[in-house]
Amino acid sequence: MYFTKFFIPTLREAPSDADIVSAKLMLRAGMIRKLASGLYEWLPLGLRVLRNVENIIRTEMNRIDGQEVWLPIMQPKELWEETGRWVVYGKELFRIKDRKESDFCLGPTAEEVITDIVRREVRSYRQLPVMLYQFGVKFRDEIRPRFGIMRAREFLMKDAYSFHADEQDAGNYYQKAFEAYKNICGNCGLNFRPVEATTGNIGGSFSHEFMVLADTGEEEIVWCGCGYGSNIEKAECPRADTERNGEELAVSEVHTPGLKSVDEVSAFLKEKSDKFIKTLVYMADGAPLVALVRGDYEINEAKLQQALGAQTVFLADAQTVKDITGADTGFAGPLGLKKEIRIIADFSVECIINAVTGANKNDYHLVNVNIERDFKPSLVADIRKVTVNDLCPRCGGKLEFCRGIEIGHTFKLGLKYSKAMKAQYLDAQGKENLMVMGCYGIGVSRIVAAAIEQSHDENGIIWPVQIAPFKVYIVAVNWDDENIRKTAVDIHDKLTALGIETLLDDRPERAGIKFKDADLTGIPVRITIGDRNLKDGKVEFKLRKDKNTEASLVPFDKIINEVQSVLANSR
Amino acid sequence: MYFTKFFIPTLREAPSDADIVSAKLMLRAGMIRKLASGLYEWLPLGLRVLRNVENIIRTEMNRIDGQEVWLPIMQPKELWEETGRWVVYGKELFRIKDRKESDFCLGPTAEEVITDIVRREVRSYRQLPVMLYQFGVKFRDEIRPRFGIMRAREFLMKDAYSFHADEQDAGNYYQKAFEAYKNICGNCGLNFRPVEATTGNIGGSFSHEFMVLADTGEEEIVWCGCGYGSNIEKAECPRADTERNGEELAVSEVHTPGLKSVDEVSAFLKEKSDKFIKTLVYMADGAPLVALVRGDYEINEAKLQQALGAQTVFLADAQTVKDITGADTGFAGPLGLKKEIRIIADFSVECIINAVTGANKNDYHLVNVNIERDFKPSLVADIRKVTVNDLCPRCGGKLEFCRGIEIGHTFKLGLKYSKAMKAQYLDAQGKENLMVMGCYGIGVSRIVAAAIEQSHDENGIIWPVQIAPFKVYIVAVNWDDENIRKTAVDIHDKLTALGIETLLDDRPERAGIKFKDADLTGIPVRITIGDRNLKDGKVEFKLRKDKNTEASLVPFDKIINEVQSVLANSR
Repeated sequence: MYFTKFFIPTLREAPSDADIVSAKLMLRAGMIRKLASGLYEWLPLGLRVLRNVENIIRTEMNRIDGQEVWLPIMQPKELWEETGRWVVYGKELFRIKDRKESDFCLGPTAEEVITDIVRREVRSYRQLPVMLYQFGVKFRDEIRPRFGIMRAREFLMKDAYSFHADEQDAGNYYQKAFEAYKNICGNCGLNFRPVEATTGNIGGSFSHEFMVLADTGEEEIVWCGCGYGSNIEKAECPRADTERNGEELAVSEVHTPGLKSVDEVSAFLKEKSDKFIKTLVYMADGAPLVALVRGDYEINEAKLQQALGAQTVFLADAQTVKDITGADTGFAGPLGLKKEIRIIADFSVECIINAVTGANKNDYHLVNVNIERDFKPSLVADIRKVTVNDLCPRCGGKLEFCRGIEIGHTFKLGLKYSKAMKAQYLDAQGKENLMVMGCYGIGVSRIVAAAIEQSHDENGIIWPVQIAPFKVYIVAVNWDDENIRKTAVDIHDKLTALGIETLLDDRPERAGIKFKDADLTGIPVRITIGDRNLKDGKVEFKLRKDKNTEASLVPFDKIINEVQSVLANSR
Repeated sequence: MYFTKFFIPTLREAPSDADIVSAKLMLRAGMIRKLASGLYEWLPLGLRVLRNVENIIRTEMNRIDGQEVWLPIMQPKELWEETGRWVVYGKELFRIKDRKESDFCLGPTAEEVITDIVRREVRSYRQLPVMLYQFGVKFRDEIRPRFGIMRAREFLMKDAYSFHADEQDAGNYYQKAFEAYKNICGNCGLNFRPVEATTGNIGGSFSHEFMVLADTGEEEIVWCGCGYGSNIEKAECPRADTERNGEELAVSEVHTPGLKSVDEVSAFLKEKSDKFIKTLVYMADGAPLVALVRGDYEINEAKLQQALGAQTVFLADAQTVKDITGADTGFAGPLGLKKEIRIIADFSVECIINAVTGANKNDYHLVNVNIERDFKPSLVADIRKVTVNDLCPRCGGKLEFCRGIEIGHTFKLGLKYSKAMKAQYLDAQGKENLMVMGCYGIGVSRIVAAAIEQSHDENGIIWPVQIAPFKVYIVAVNWDDENIRKTAVDIHDKLTALGIETLLDDRPERAGIKFKDADLTGIPVRITIGDRNLKDGKVEFKLRKDKNTEASLVPFDKIINEVQSVLANSR
């Protein structure tokens, strides 16, 4: 491809509203343009990367017997009402009426539509399992679209849905899909971690997120060399197996005037914060409750919600705290509450002997409080946030903390949708059974941005070879020089004939401008053809990722081989 | 691909609401399913055909230096207001509001979005020409969605837009695009005609439609062996070059009580209908006018509208006719009108000597009326419908009439959008100029249906090899027979390794059912592996299109070669 024939409007500066490095670089490299908030136009360079990612994903989906389909964007309200999601999805769902005033949404996902197809077409166990997937434009009316294509309102997603006769088959297939997702990330040249995750709005029994590691990632994850990984919300903090040792002393009240936080009281009493029981009042589905956690830990509201099986959980307001504890916020404790309400304790509370707590009385705390003797929680569970001091819940090893970008999410859905929509089949005995489902989504457009967040420098993008829009960028130092031109065209044509996508910069510009665009667009191999080297029968060869290495000189007749072998080794 | 692993729910009967043969067959063959009115799900078999068509189109677009882009489906109202189309498009445009109450449409086409990109990014003549295209889902809120995917509300279209420095370059490129479109139709294995067409709601100076010939087509077209073709609305009826011969007699009035139609008066006066001037009162953009045409011809309202440069043209109501002619409908003529209004005559009126017309007086006609002597039209133009007696306007040869399905439309847009949206560039002299545009659309999903309308029989689809979802269908007569199974798998694997897409029917069904599905799905080559022939080392070979030919027997070791050579010759 000749640069002058390619529509690639590169920019020296990114537009001022670009708020993240991938968005800046994609705009500058002429990969995308913004049409409106959260709506992006993919220009030819960007689309080439997108298609590369799409093809890598398609290969893996076909390998696990996925059947590609293509579904309408407009989905009728009636299907979404069957699962209750027409209401649950709220304002993120784009809704539209046709000329006959019928209601549709612009699909953010396709569980309903797919389950509808399968319940109509699949009647017998002989037709199971079946996995259908599509590459489709998805819509989400984000409250605040940002980060370029990363949090756009229209985006390209591959969504896959599998249907099984029983839990076991669904579980086995989930494992295959999980491996396929790992292959996709690997084949895209990404450094990634699959982590355990909460299931949110899609639902189901468990799920994994696939995280591309990047310091700029929105998500925090923990992982361990043993293979364990989790997003921070889900990371497990198991029950300690240590026994309670030591003499339980008598409870007594201490005057702690104006001291509310654990840190203040800890300093005042000269007791470490791990001797404290922190007491918080929450509202869960409208009912108040008290949650307890060790003084040096924090409550994880996602876990609390899960432990309670609640739809909503949030901190109670000051008045509710006063009604329940009889004191202002800061003096709450599990003893002597004014109302009979549920007490939920984190596992960490179990081990504290002679704990310090609020006295449910302004300016007073209690010391020597002991679980079971002094108060009995209605539930003891894992409801706290993981910390850097925690160990791997699987192997006891050290946990690593890092940031990531979620690009994929696999769900073991179980019966959620098949039950709501009556997706049933006849088994070998002629009995009706519900199908067991899984679903597997990956953000195709988001992978493009995530790859850039993971791999760039101050000069531009550094593409993994696998998804690079071109593999080779030829800088013809002076396009007017016939010798240079001939050599450049010759190398371009030879590489192209070998199926190696090559961009030949044939612009009548200075070499400096060409080098800048070569760096900006991040194409893995740069070949520079200049007058002086050409006289010695040589061209310059440089890898985009080897930022600090000088370009090497390669004899003209060896350059094709050199490119081939470098590309083969970079995958 | 094994049939039992492929999601292909074939049906014995089409759903009762399928209203056209392609819809019926696509539903029966398990290619599509209906989600809601005008919204279809593409299942794996259908999607394979769609992707084949897409790839053929892409190849041709790249060959004429097209640059593939990918544009948002939601397009902001503001852009559509710049061209006035937010209003003009009316109810066919799906409109949607986001959570901030901003207005968008779901794009039915992308002139505005593309022109907006190019006006932002292209500043210099050096960057021209540029052609951008995309494969995108398009939306049209049809008043009556029907004919399956043919007139759907969501459909896949390839739309392309070219931008040029001047008319000449735009004209040259139009020709290239025209050739590319012919290649696309040919490479899809379609019997087609490119025809001249009106430009409708896209606008521009001229256009061609690409028509797939099919008796079930909605459109009527004329064409000639010399290469001329036109849709019926646009078909030219040039001015006759015959001279007016004969003596012009004196006008006289004849009593024609109750005789209103040309046929009635013609029979009564014993004058042929080609001696009549038919006079019709129209409203054009709100103003009345009189249109004249020879008695045996009909007015073509599209041509009349074009000749007048009017936005709307329709027949006047009875009261307006009376106000203008002084008589009831049926007695109108060009002489003695009660009001001074425009008279537009068709070319055919020029040649009539001593014509018969209405007298603008109930129950009376005039004879011996002559143009110029008795009345002077303000405009003489081609405003009539073509007839089977007309000759080719290019070569004078015989015109053929037939029906077709419009699958593509190329437009020479000229300045329409660049003017409205100020898409300008600087020429070599540093002067601002408007870009000259062309646009080129082709219905990807519609091609699939059109191919079926053109090529099917009572048993099912007969795919052109080029777009067939699989090239070979292997019927394993008895899957339980180990020998048959081994042979079937062997042939399947060998063909697949050669890149020949093969569907192996491995179902535990009777051979009859397999033959039926082979015919229904229309796969070009059928190989049948049965017990008896296999003992002789032979398999059955049959082409789907050779309906009445017996299957031939081919030795097992020759079958791969046979398939290869037949496929190569069928393209």
